[in-house]
Amino acid sequence: MPKRKRVAFQGERGAFSEEASVQLLGEGLDLDPRPSFEEVFAALAGGSADYAVVPIENTLAGSVHENYDHLLRFKLPIVAETSVRIVHNLIARPKVRFSQVSRVFSHPVALGQCLKFFRKHPRIRPENYYDTAGGVKMLMEQAPDGAAAIASAAAAAFYGASILRRSIEDNRQNFTRFFLLARRPPRRSPAGAKGWKTSIVFTTRNIPGALFRCLSVFALRDINLAKIESRPLRGKPWEYLFYLDFLGSVGETRCRNALRHLGELTDLFQVLGCYRQGG
Amino acid sequence: MPKRKRVAFQGERGAFSEEASVQLLGEGLDLDPRPSFEEVFAALAGGSADYAVVPIENTLAGSVHENYDHLLRFKLPIVAETSVRIVHNLIARPKVRFSQVSRVFSHPVALGQCLKFFRKHPRIRPENYYDTAGGVKMLMEQAPDGAAAIASAAAAAFYGASILRRSIEDNRQNFTRFFLLARRPPRRSPAGAKGWKTSIVFTTRNIPGALFRCLSVFALRDINLAKIESRPLRGKPWEYLFYLDFLGSVGETRCRNALRHLGELTDLFQVLGCYRQGG
Repeated sequence: MPKRKRVAFQGERGAFSEEASVQLLGEGLDLDPRPSFEEVFAALAGGSADYAVVPIENTLAGSVHENYDHLLRFKLPIVAETSVRIVHNLIARPKVRFSQVSRVFSHPVALGQCLKFFRKHPRIRPENYYDTAGGVKMLMEQAPDGAAAIASAAAAAFYGASILRRSIEDNRQNFTRFFLLARRPPRRSPAGAKGWKTSIVFTTRNIPGALFRCLSVFALRDINLAKIESRPLRGKPWEYLFYLDFLGSVGETRCRNALRHLGELTDLFQVLGCYRQGG
Repeated sequence: MPKRKRVAFQGERGAFSEEASVQLLGEGLDLDPRPSFEEVFAALAGGSADYAVVPIENTLAGSVHENYDHLLRFKLPIVAETSVRIVHNLIARPKVRFSQVSRVFSHPVALGQCLKFFRKHPRIRPENYYDTAGGVKMLMEQAPDGAAAIASAAAAAFYGASILRRSIEDNRQNFTRFFLLARRPPRRSPAGAKGWKTSIVFTTRNIPGALFRCLSVFALRDINLAKIESRPLRGKPWEYLFYLDFLGSVGETRCRNALRHLGELTDLFQVLGCYRQGG
Protein backbone atom coordinates (compact mmCIF):
# COMPACT_ATOMS: atom_id res chain seq x y z
CA MET A 1 0.00 0.00 0.00
CA PRO A 2 1.46 3.38 -0.95
CA LYS A 3 1.50 5.88 1.91
CA ARG A 4 -1.46 8.29 1.80
CA LYS A 5 -0.63 11.93 1.07
CA ARG A 6 -1.01 14.10 4.17
CA VAL A 7 -2.59 17.46 3.23
CA ALA A 8 -2.97 20.43 5.61
CA PHE A 9 -5.65 23.05 4.92
CA GLN A 10 -7.38 25.80 6.90
CA GLY A 11 -10.89 25.27 8.21
CA GLU A 12 -12.96 22.28 9.21
CA ARG A 13 -13.66 19.10 7.24
CA GLY A 14 -15.96 19.99 4.32
CA ALA A 15 -14.27 23.37 3.71
CA PHE A 16 -13.81 24.62 0.15
CA SER A 17 -10.08 23.97 0.68
CA GLU A 18 -10.90 20.27 1.04
CA GLU A 19 -12.64 20.35 -2.36
CA ALA A 20 -9.53 22.05 -3.79
CA SER A 21 -7.31 19.37 -2.21
CA VAL A 22 -9.24 16.60 -3.96
CA GLN A 23 -9.10 18.50 -7.29
CA LEU A 24 -5.33 18.89 -6.90
CA LEU A 25 -4.33 15.49 -5.51
CA GLY A 26 -7.25 13.10 -6.04
CA GLU A 27 -9.22 11.03 -3.51
CA GLY A 28 -7.79 8.96 -0.67
CA LEU A 29 -5.99 11.79 1.11
CA ASP A 30 -5.03 12.00 4.75
CA LEU A 31 -6.74 15.35 5.45
CA ASP A 32 -5.33 17.57 8.18
CA PRO A 33 -7.63 20.57 8.92
CA ARG A 34 -5.97 23.41 10.88
CA PRO A 35 -7.48 26.46 12.60
CA SER A 36 -5.29 29.10 10.92
CA PHE A 37 -3.36 29.67 7.68
CA GLU A 38 -0.15 30.13 9.67
CA GLU A 39 -0.59 26.64 11.19
CA VAL A 40 -1.16 25.19 7.70
CA PHE A 41 2.19 26.61 6.52
CA ALA A 42 3.87 25.50 9.76
CA ALA A 43 2.50 21.93 9.39
CA LEU A 44 4.11 21.65 5.96
CA ALA A 45 7.35 23.35 7.01
CA GLY A 46 7.63 21.12 10.10
CA GLY A 47 7.04 17.90 8.16
CA SER A 48 3.73 16.82 9.72
CA ALA A 49 2.08 17.35 6.30
CA ASP A 50 3.37 16.48 2.80
CA TYR A 51 1.34 19.23 1.10
CA ALA A 52 -0.60 22.35 2.01
CA VAL A 53 -3.59 23.75 0.09
CA VAL A 54 -4.30 27.46 0.57
CA PRO A 55 -6.71 29.93 -1.08
CA ILE A 56 -4.89 32.85 -2.71
CA GLU A 57 -7.64 34.90 -4.34
CA ASN A 58 -11.39 35.01 -4.84
CA THR A 59 -12.95 36.62 -7.92
CA LEU A 60 -15.24 38.77 -5.72
CA ALA A 61 -13.36 39.31 -2.44
CA GLY A 62 -9.88 39.70 -3.99
CA SER A 63 -6.58 38.34 -2.71
CA VAL A 64 -6.06 36.49 0.55
CA HIS A 65 -3.25 38.81 1.61
CA GLU A 66 -2.29 36.86 4.68
CA ASN A 67 -1.27 33.92 2.49
CA TYR A 68 0.92 36.14 0.29
CA ASP A 69 2.73 37.18 3.47
CA HIS A 70 3.17 33.52 4.52
CA LEU A 71 4.45 32.52 1.04
CA LEU A 72 7.24 35.06 1.40
CA ARG A 73 8.08 34.12 4.98
CA PHE A 74 7.91 30.30 4.83
CA LYS A 75 9.51 29.98 1.34
CA LEU A 76 7.45 26.84 0.58
CA PRO A 77 7.20 26.43 -3.21
CA ILE A 78 3.93 26.57 -5.15
CA VAL A 79 3.75 23.35 -7.20
CA ALA A 80 0.20 23.56 -8.64
CA GLU A 81 -2.92 25.73 -8.79
CA THR A 82 -6.62 25.09 -9.23
CA SER A 83 -9.86 27.03 -8.93
CA VAL A 84 -13.07 26.02 -7.22
CA ARG A 85 -16.48 27.47 -7.97
CA ILE A 86 -17.92 28.71 -4.68
CA VAL A 87 -21.53 27.58 -4.24
CA HIS A 88 -23.12 28.69 -0.97
CA ASN A 89 -25.98 26.56 0.39
CA LEU A 90 -28.31 27.16 3.31
CA ILE A 91 -27.78 24.17 5.56
CA ALA A 92 -29.59 23.02 8.72
CA ARG A 93 -29.99 19.94 10.93
CA PRO A 94 -32.16 17.23 9.35
CA LYS A 95 -35.90 17.88 9.81
CA VAL A 96 -35.43 21.63 10.45
CA ARG A 97 -37.80 23.49 8.08
CA PHE A 98 -36.91 26.71 6.24
CA SER A 99 -39.72 28.57 8.09
CA GLN A 100 -38.03 27.76 11.42
CA VAL A 101 -34.72 29.44 10.51
CA SER A 102 -34.14 32.82 12.19
CA ARG A 103 -30.35 33.10 12.13
CA VAL A 104 -27.54 31.90 9.91
CA PHE A 105 -23.95 31.28 11.02
CA SER A 106 -21.10 31.55 8.51
CA HIS A 107 -17.79 33.19 7.72
CA PRO A 108 -18.26 36.97 7.18
CA VAL A 109 -17.04 36.69 3.55
CA ALA A 110 -19.68 34.01 2.81
CA LEU A 111 -22.43 36.02 4.53
CA GLY A 112 -21.40 39.06 2.50
CA GLN A 113 -21.77 37.03 -0.71
CA CYS A 114 -25.43 36.17 0.06
CA LEU A 115 -26.84 39.66 0.68
CA LYS A 116 -29.77 39.22 -1.75
CA PHE A 117 -30.90 36.18 0.23
CA PHE A 118 -30.87 38.16 3.50
CA ARG A 119 -32.65 41.12 1.88
CA LYS A 120 -35.39 38.78 0.60
CA HIS A 121 -35.78 37.15 4.03
CA PRO A 122 -35.45 39.99 6.56
CA ARG A 123 -36.59 37.71 9.42
CA ILE A 124 -33.31 35.77 9.02
CA ARG A 125 -30.31 37.34 10.73
CA PRO A 126 -26.70 36.71 9.58
CA GLU A 127 -24.24 35.88 12.39
CA ASN A 128 -20.47 35.87 11.96
CA TYR A 129 -18.74 32.55 12.52
CA TYR A 130 -15.04 31.69 12.13
CA ASP A 131 -15.56 29.18 9.32
CA THR A 132 -18.22 28.07 6.79
CA ALA A 133 -18.00 24.29 7.34
CA GLY A 134 -17.33 24.93 11.05
CA GLY A 135 -20.81 26.48 11.25
CA VAL A 136 -22.36 23.21 10.01
CA LYS A 137 -20.29 21.21 12.51
CA MET A 138 -21.48 23.50 15.32
CA LEU A 139 -25.16 23.12 14.28
CA MET A 140 -24.89 19.34 14.43
CA GLU A 141 -23.10 19.34 17.80
CA GLN A 142 -24.95 22.10 19.65
CA ALA A 143 -28.37 22.30 17.89
CA PRO A 144 -28.92 26.03 18.61
CA ASP A 145 -32.56 27.16 18.19
CA GLY A 146 -33.64 28.45 14.77
CA ALA A 147 -30.10 28.20 13.43
CA ALA A 148 -28.77 27.39 9.97
CA ALA A 149 -25.36 27.73 8.30
CA ILE A 150 -24.04 28.76 4.88
CA ALA A 151 -21.45 26.33 3.52
CA SER A 152 -20.56 23.89 0.74
CA ALA A 153 -22.59 20.82 -0.21
CA ALA A 154 -19.52 18.81 0.88
CA ALA A 155 -19.86 20.20 4.41
CA ALA A 156 -23.56 19.24 4.55
CA ALA A 157 -22.71 15.72 3.39
CA PHE A 158 -19.73 15.30 5.75
CA TYR A 159 -21.65 16.30 8.90
CA GLY A 160 -24.96 14.68 7.87
CA ALA A 161 -26.86 17.98 7.65
CA SER A 162 -29.58 18.93 5.13
CA ILE A 163 -29.50 21.51 2.36
CA LEU A 164 -32.57 23.81 2.67
CA ARG A 165 -31.71 26.13 -0.25
CA ARG A 166 -29.07 25.51 -2.90
CA SER A 167 -26.79 28.15 -4.46
CA ILE A 168 -27.95 31.25 -2.54
CA GLU A 169 -24.85 33.30 -3.49
CA ASP A 170 -25.50 36.69 -5.16
CA ASN A 171 -23.08 36.17 -7.99
CA ARG A 172 -22.36 32.93 -9.86
CA GLN A 173 -19.00 34.27 -11.04
CA ASN A 174 -17.58 33.33 -7.66
CA PHE A 175 -14.37 31.31 -7.91
CA THR A 176 -11.51 30.82 -5.49
CA ARG A 177 -8.01 30.06 -6.73
CA PHE A 178 -5.96 27.70 -4.55
CA PHE A 179 -2.23 26.92 -4.46
CA LEU A 180 -0.77 23.52 -3.72
CA LEU A 181 2.45 23.92 -1.72
CA ALA A 182 5.18 21.34 -1.16
CA ARG A 183 8.39 21.39 0.85
CA ARG A 184 10.62 21.30 -2.22
CA PRO A 185 10.14 22.39 -5.83
CA PRO A 186 9.98 19.61 -8.45
CA ARG A 187 13.42 18.48 -9.71
CA ARG A 188 13.11 19.81 -13.25
CA SER A 189 11.26 22.74 -14.75
CA PRO A 190 9.90 22.30 -18.27
CA ALA A 191 11.87 24.06 -21.03
CA GLY A 192 9.61 25.75 -23.52
CA ALA A 193 6.48 23.86 -22.45
CA LYS A 194 3.20 25.71 -22.97
CA GLY A 195 0.70 26.21 -20.19
CA TRP A 196 3.04 27.00 -17.31
CA LYS A 197 2.84 29.84 -14.86
CA THR A 198 5.45 31.33 -12.53
CA SER A 199 4.80 33.37 -9.38
CA ILE A 200 7.41 35.80 -8.07
CA VAL A 201 7.72 38.56 -5.45
CA PHE A 202 9.97 41.62 -5.61
CA THR A 203 10.51 45.12 -4.22
CA THR A 204 11.42 47.98 -6.53
CA ARG A 205 14.13 50.52 -5.78
CA ASN A 206 12.62 53.83 -4.76
CA ILE A 207 13.34 55.65 -8.05
CA PRO A 208 11.06 57.16 -10.73
CA GLY A 209 9.71 54.62 -13.20
CA ALA A 210 10.91 51.69 -11.08
CA LEU A 211 7.84 49.49 -11.56
CA PHE A 212 7.71 50.40 -15.27
CA ARG A 213 11.30 49.17 -15.68
CA CYS A 214 10.51 45.96 -13.80
CA LEU A 215 7.52 45.24 -16.06
CA SER A 216 9.67 45.98 -19.13
CA VAL A 217 11.71 42.81 -18.52
CA PHE A 218 8.53 40.85 -19.34
CA ALA A 219 6.99 43.15 -21.99
CA LEU A 220 10.23 43.35 -24.02
CA ARG A 221 10.31 39.53 -24.16
CA ASP A 222 6.57 39.14 -24.97
CA ILE A 223 5.96 37.40 -21.66
CA ASN A 224 2.33 37.88 -20.55
CA LEU A 225 1.44 38.83 -17.01
CA ALA A 226 -1.51 37.04 -15.43
CA LYS A 227 -1.65 39.08 -12.21
CA ILE A 228 0.06 41.83 -10.25
CA GLU A 229 -0.62 42.66 -6.64
CA SER A 230 0.98 45.13 -4.24
CA ARG A 231 1.38 44.64 -0.50
CA PRO A 232 2.73 47.15 2.03
CA LEU A 233 6.27 46.47 3.25
CA ARG A 234 6.29 45.87 7.03
CA GLY A 235 8.22 48.54 8.90
CA LYS A 236 8.54 50.74 5.78
CA PRO A 237 5.37 52.83 5.57
CA TRP A 238 4.15 53.51 2.01
CA GLU A 239 6.68 51.16 0.39
CA TYR A 240 5.40 48.03 -1.33
CA LEU A 241 6.16 44.46 -2.29
CA PHE A 242 4.87 43.31 -5.69
CA TYR A 243 3.52 39.81 -6.27
CA LEU A 244 3.43 38.95 -9.95
CA ASP A 245 2.34 35.89 -11.97
CA PHE A 246 3.53 35.47 -15.56
CA LEU A 247 2.76 32.88 -18.20
CA GLY A 248 5.93 30.89 -18.69
CA SER A 249 8.29 28.49 -16.96
CA VAL A 250 11.66 29.04 -15.27
CA GLY A 251 12.89 26.28 -17.61
CA GLU A 252 12.44 28.60 -20.64
CA THR A 253 15.45 30.66 -21.69
CA ARG A 254 13.45 33.88 -22.28
CA CYS A 255 11.91 33.59 -18.78
CA ARG A 256 15.27 32.89 -17.16
CA ASN A 257 16.66 35.96 -18.98
CA ALA A 258 13.71 38.07 -17.80
CA LEU A 259 14.23 36.97 -14.21
CA ARG A 260 17.99 37.67 -14.37
CA HIS A 261 17.18 41.12 -15.80
CA LEU A 262 14.61 41.68 -13.03
CA GLY A 263 17.25 40.77 -10.44
CA GLU A 264 19.34 43.73 -11.67
CA LEU A 265 16.44 46.13 -11.03
CA THR A 266 15.14 44.96 -7.67
CA ASP A 267 16.24 44.90 -4.03
CA LEU A 268 14.42 41.76 -2.97
CA PHE A 269 13.45 39.13 -5.53
CA GLN A 270 12.19 35.57 -5.02
CA VAL A 271 10.54 32.87 -7.18
CA LEU A 272 7.53 31.52 -5.27
CA GLY A 273 6.88 28.67 -7.66
CA CYS A 274 6.57 27.44 -11.23
CA TYR A 275 3.54 25.28 -11.96
CA ARG A 276 1.12 24.10 -14.62
CA GLN A 277 -1.73 26.59 -15.26
CA GLY A 278 -4.82 25.32 -13.50
CA GLY A 279 -8.41 25.11 -14.73
CA MET B 1 -22.36 81.68 13.13
CA PRO B 2 -21.06 79.68 10.15
CA LYS B 3 -22.78 76.33 9.70
CA ARG B 4 -20.79 73.44 11.16
CA LYS B 5 -19.37 70.93 8.70
CA ARG B 6 -21.24 67.62 8.80
CA VAL B 7 -18.78 64.69 8.48
CA ALA B 8 -19.80 61.04 8.08
CA PHE B 9 -17.35 58.28 9.10
CA GLN B 10 -17.56 54.57 9.85
CA GLY B 11 -17.50 53.36 13.46
CA GLU B 12 -18.43 54.82 16.80
CA ARG B 13 -17.41 58.16 18.31
CA GLY B 14 -13.72 57.97 19.23
CA ALA B 15 -12.83 55.90 16.15
CA PHE B 16 -9.53 56.52 14.35
CA SER B 17 -11.65 58.00 11.53
CA GLU B 18 -12.76 60.73 13.96
CA GLU B 19 -9.10 61.61 14.61
CA ALA B 20 -8.55 61.73 10.84
CA SER B 21 -11.62 64.00 10.45
CA VAL B 22 -10.19 66.52 12.91
CA GLN B 23 -6.77 66.40 11.17
CA LEU B 24 -8.46 67.06 7.83
CA LEU B 25 -11.10 69.65 8.77
CA GLY B 26 -10.24 71.02 12.23
CA GLU B 27 -12.28 71.04 15.44
CA GLY B 28 -15.95 72.00 15.79
CA LEU B 29 -17.33 69.38 13.41
CA ASP B 30 -20.80 67.92 13.35
CA LEU B 31 -19.74 64.25 13.55
CA ASP B 32 -21.98 61.60 11.98
CA PRO B 33 -20.82 58.04 12.84
CA ARG B 34 -22.31 55.30 10.64
CA PRO B 35 -22.29 51.51 11.03
CA SER B 36 -20.87 50.67 7.57
CA PHE B 37 -18.65 52.18 4.88
CA GLU B 38 -21.48 51.91 2.38
CA GLU B 39 -23.68 54.06 4.64
CA VAL B 40 -20.88 56.64 4.92
CA PHE B 41 -20.73 56.97 1.12
CA ALA B 42 -24.55 57.03 0.92
CA ALA B 43 -24.77 59.79 3.59
CA LEU B 44 -22.49 62.02 1.49
CA ALA B 45 -24.18 61.13 -1.82
CA GLY B 46 -27.63 61.75 -0.34
CA GLY B 47 -26.71 65.15 1.11
CA SER B 48 -27.09 64.37 4.83
CA ALA B 49 -23.30 64.89 5.22
CA ASP B 50 -21.03 67.55 3.63
CA TYR B 51 -17.93 65.33 3.79
CA ALA B 52 -17.01 61.69 4.31
CA VAL B 53 -13.75 60.43 5.84
CA VAL B 54 -12.77 56.87 4.96
CA PRO B 55 -9.63 54.74 5.57
CA ILE B 56 -8.05 53.54 2.34
CA GLU B 57 -4.92 51.69 3.46
CA ASN B 58 -2.98 50.65 6.52
CA THR B 59 0.78 50.15 6.43
CA LEU B 60 0.43 46.68 8.01
CA ALA B 61 -2.99 45.38 6.94
CA GLY B 62 -2.90 46.77 3.38
CA SER B 63 -5.71 48.39 1.41
CA VAL B 64 -9.30 48.69 2.54
CA HIS B 65 -10.62 47.12 -0.64
CA GLU B 66 -14.25 47.73 0.10
CA ASN B 67 -13.64 51.48 -0.03
CA TYR B 68 -11.92 51.24 -3.41
CA ASP B 69 -15.07 49.52 -4.69
CA HIS B 70 -17.27 52.31 -3.22
CA LEU B 71 -15.06 55.06 -4.73
CA LEU B 72 -15.68 53.61 -8.17
CA ARG B 73 -19.41 53.10 -7.63
CA PHE B 74 -20.37 56.35 -5.86
CA LYS B 75 -18.08 58.63 -7.93
CA LEU B 76 -17.56 60.99 -4.95
CA PRO B 77 -14.28 62.89 -5.47
CA ILE B 78 -11.29 62.61 -3.15
CA VAL B 79 -10.39 66.18 -2.09
CA ALA B 80 -7.69 65.56 0.57
CA GLU B 81 -5.70 62.81 2.29
CA THR B 82 -4.05 62.42 5.68
CA SER B 83 -2.46 59.65 7.71
CA VAL B 84 -2.99 58.78 11.35
CA ARG B 85 -0.56 56.81 13.49
CA ILE B 86 -2.47 53.90 14.98
CA VAL B 87 -1.79 53.54 18.71
CA HIS B 88 -3.65 50.69 20.38
CA ASN B 89 -4.39 51.00 24.10
CA LEU B 90 -5.81 48.48 26.55
CA ILE B 91 -8.90 50.21 27.93
CA ALA B 92 -11.30 49.23 30.75
CA ARG B 93 -14.00 50.76 32.96
CA PRO B 94 -12.59 53.05 35.67
CA LYS B 95 -11.32 51.14 38.76
CA VAL B 96 -10.93 47.84 36.84
CA ARG B 97 -7.38 46.57 37.49
CA PHE B 98 -5.14 44.94 34.90
CA SER B 99 -5.09 41.69 36.95
CA GLN B 100 -8.89 41.45 36.61
CA VAL B 101 -8.87 41.45 32.80
CA SER B 102 -9.53 38.03 31.22
CA ARG B 103 -10.88 38.99 27.76
CA VAL B 104 -10.41 41.86 25.35
CA PHE B 105 -12.96 43.01 22.77
CA SER B 106 -11.81 44.77 19.60
CA HIS B 107 -11.93 44.75 15.81
CA PRO B 108 -10.12 41.65 14.45
CA VAL B 109 -7.54 43.84 12.65
CA ALA B 110 -6.67 45.62 15.94
CA LEU B 111 -6.48 42.31 17.85
CA GLY B 112 -4.19 40.95 15.14
CA GLN B 113 -1.87 43.95 15.60
CA CYS B 114 -1.38 43.22 19.34
CA LEU B 115 -0.29 39.55 19.16
CA LYS B 116 2.83 40.07 21.32
CA PHE B 117 0.62 41.43 24.11
CA PHE B 118 -1.62 38.33 23.98
CA ARG B 119 1.38 35.99 23.84
CA LYS B 120 2.85 37.67 26.94
CA HIS B 121 -0.48 37.44 28.82
CA PRO B 122 -1.94 34.04 27.87
CA ARG B 123 -4.68 34.36 30.54
CA ILE B 124 -6.20 37.19 28.44
CA ARG B 125 -8.39 36.04 25.54
CA PRO B 126 -8.98 38.20 22.43
CA GLU B 127 -12.64 38.45 21.33
CA ASN B 128 -13.77 39.81 17.94
CA TYR B 129 -15.93 42.91 18.05
CA TYR B 130 -17.30 44.94 15.14
CA ASP B 131 -15.40 48.14 16.03
CA THR B 132 -12.51 49.36 18.23
CA ALA B 133 -14.22 52.37 19.83
CA GLY B 134 -17.51 50.43 19.84
CA GLY B 135 -15.88 47.94 22.22
CA VAL B 136 -15.17 50.77 24.71
CA LYS B 137 -18.77 52.01 24.40
CA MET B 138 -20.06 48.47 25.06
CA LEU B 139 -17.81 48.11 28.19
CA MET B 140 -19.20 51.33 29.64
CA GLU B 141 -22.82 50.42 28.87
CA GLN B 142 -22.88 46.70 29.71
CA ALA B 143 -19.95 46.24 32.14
CA PRO B 144 -19.23 42.61 31.17
CA ASP B 145 -17.10 40.70 33.74
CA GLY B 146 -13.31 40.78 33.30
CA ALA B 147 -13.59 42.67 30.03
CA ALA B 148 -11.36 45.27 28.41
CA ALA B 149 -11.14 46.76 24.91
CA ILE B 150 -8.37 47.78 22.51
CA ALA B 151 -8.94 51.23 21.01
CA SER B 152 -7.62 54.79 20.67
CA ALA B 153 -6.93 57.18 23.57
CA ALA B 154 -9.69 59.35 22.04
CA ALA B 155 -12.20 56.53 22.54
CA ALA B 156 -11.16 56.13 26.22
CA ALA B 157 -11.58 59.90 26.75
CA PHE B 158 -14.89 60.13 24.90
CA TYR B 159 -16.59 57.31 26.86
CA GLY B 160 -14.90 58.11 30.22
CA ALA B 161 -12.96 54.83 30.34
CA SER B 162 -9.42 54.27 31.70
CA ILE B 163 -6.27 53.31 29.85
CA LEU B 164 -4.63 50.29 31.57
CA ARG B 165 -1.72 49.86 29.12
CA ARG B 166 -0.65 52.37 26.46
CA SER B 167 0.62 51.52 22.98
CA ILE B 168 0.37 47.71 23.07
CA GLU B 169 0.60 47.37 19.26
CA ASP B 170 3.34 45.02 17.94
CA ASN B 171 4.69 47.46 15.39
CA ARG B 172 5.04 51.21 15.76
CA GLN B 173 5.15 51.66 11.98
CA ASN B 174 1.38 51.40 11.96
CA PHE B 175 -0.28 54.20 10.00
CA THR B 176 -3.64 54.43 8.31
CA ARG B 177 -4.18 56.68 5.30
CA PHE B 178 -7.59 58.37 5.07
CA PHE B 179 -9.37 60.12 2.21
CA LEU B 180 -11.62 63.15 2.60
CA LEU B 181 -14.48 62.92 0.12
CA ALA B 182 -16.83 65.70 -1.00
CA ARG B 183 -19.83 65.75 -3.32
CA ARG B 184 -18.07 67.85 -5.96
CA PRO B 185 -14.40 68.33 -6.87
CA PRO B 186 -12.88 71.77 -6.12
CA ARG B 187 -13.49 74.37 -8.90
CA ARG B 188 -9.89 74.70 -10.05
CA SER B 189 -6.99 72.29 -10.11
CA PRO B 190 -3.52 73.76 -9.60
CA ALA B 191 -1.38 74.07 -12.74
CA GLY B 192 2.19 72.97 -12.11
CA ALA B 193 1.91 73.21 -8.35
CA LYS B 194 4.21 70.87 -6.41
CA GLY B 195 2.93 68.48 -3.78
CA TRP B 196 -0.26 67.28 -5.47
CA LYS B 197 -1.44 63.73 -5.95
CA THR B 198 -4.02 62.25 -8.32
CA SER B 199 -5.88 58.95 -7.88
CA ILE B 200 -7.30 57.11 -10.89
CA VAL B 201 -8.85 53.75 -11.72
CA PHE B 202 -8.68 51.91 -15.04
CA THR B 203 -9.02 48.50 -16.71
CA THR B 204 -6.51 47.35 -19.30
CA ARG B 205 -7.45 45.69 -22.57
CA ASN B 206 -6.72 41.98 -22.46
CA ILE B 207 -3.59 42.09 -24.68
CA PRO B 208 0.09 41.29 -23.99
CA GLY B 209 1.99 44.11 -22.31
CA ALA B 210 -1.22 46.03 -21.56
CA LEU B 211 -0.26 47.17 -18.05
CA PHE B 212 3.28 48.00 -19.22
CA ARG B 213 1.85 50.30 -21.93
CA CYS B 214 -0.43 51.96 -19.37
CA LEU B 215 2.48 52.64 -17.02
CA SER B 216 4.53 53.99 -19.94
CA VAL B 217 2.22 57.04 -20.17
CA PHE B 218 3.59 58.09 -16.78
CA ALA B 219 7.18 56.84 -17.07
CA LEU B 220 7.75 58.54 -20.45
CA ARG B 221 6.68 61.87 -18.88
CA ASP B 222 8.72 61.40 -15.68
CA ILE B 223 5.55 61.24 -13.58
CA ASN B 224 6.17 59.27 -10.39
CA LEU B 225 3.74 56.64 -9.17
CA ALA B 226 2.95 56.55 -5.47
CA LYS B 227 0.85 53.38 -5.44
CA ILE B 228 -0.67 50.72 -7.67
CA GLU B 229 -3.29 48.24 -6.55
CA SER B 230 -5.27 45.60 -8.45
CA ARG B 231 -8.84 44.49 -7.69
CA PRO B 232 -10.79 41.69 -9.36
CA LEU B 233 -13.45 42.82 -11.83
CA ARG B 234 -16.92 41.68 -10.71
CA GLY B 235 -18.48 39.18 -13.07
CA LYS B 236 -15.25 38.77 -15.07
CA PRO B 237 -13.18 36.13 -13.28
CA TRP B 238 -9.40 36.71 -13.38
CA GLU B 239 -9.71 40.20 -14.93
CA TYR B 240 -8.65 43.22 -12.87
CA LEU B 241 -9.18 46.91 -12.18
CA PHE B 242 -6.08 48.95 -11.38
CA TYR B 243 -6.11 51.76 -8.83
CA LEU B 244 -3.14 54.06 -9.26
CA ASP B 245 -1.89 57.20 -7.47
CA PHE B 246 0.61 59.48 -9.19
CA LEU B 247 2.43 62.59 -8.02
CA GLY B 248 1.01 65.47 -10.00
CA SER B 249 -2.15 67.45 -10.61
CA VAL B 250 -4.78 67.28 -13.34
CA GLY B 251 -4.06 71.02 -13.78
CA GLU B 252 -0.57 70.24 -15.14
CA THR B 253 -0.21 69.85 -18.91
CA ARG B 254 2.07 66.78 -18.70
CA CYS B 255 -0.44 65.04 -16.39
CA ARG B 256 -3.38 65.94 -18.63
CA ASN B 257 -1.42 64.56 -21.60
CA ALA B 258 -0.62 61.37 -19.68
CA LEU B 259 -4.29 60.87 -18.79
CA ARG B 260 -5.42 61.49 -22.39
CA HIS B 261 -2.81 58.95 -23.52
CA LEU B 262 -4.04 56.49 -20.88
CA GLY B 263 -7.60 56.94 -22.14
CA GLU B 264 -6.45 55.60 -25.55
CA LEU B 265 -5.15 52.41 -23.92
CA THR B 266 -7.90 51.54 -21.48
CA ASP B 267 -11.50 50.32 -21.54
CA LEU B 268 -12.64 51.99 -18.33
CA PHE B 269 -10.86 55.04 -16.96
CA GLN B 270 -11.90 57.44 -14.20
CA VAL B 271 -10.19 60.17 -12.11
CA LEU B 272 -11.08 59.56 -8.46
CA GLY B 273 -9.63 62.83 -7.21
CA CYS B 274 -6.77 65.33 -7.27
CA TYR B 275 -5.62 66.55 -3.87
CA ARG B 276 -2.71 67.96 -1.90
CA GLN B 277 -0.28 65.27 -0.67
CA GLY B 278 -1.01 64.62 2.99
CA GLY B 279 1.40 64.25 5.92
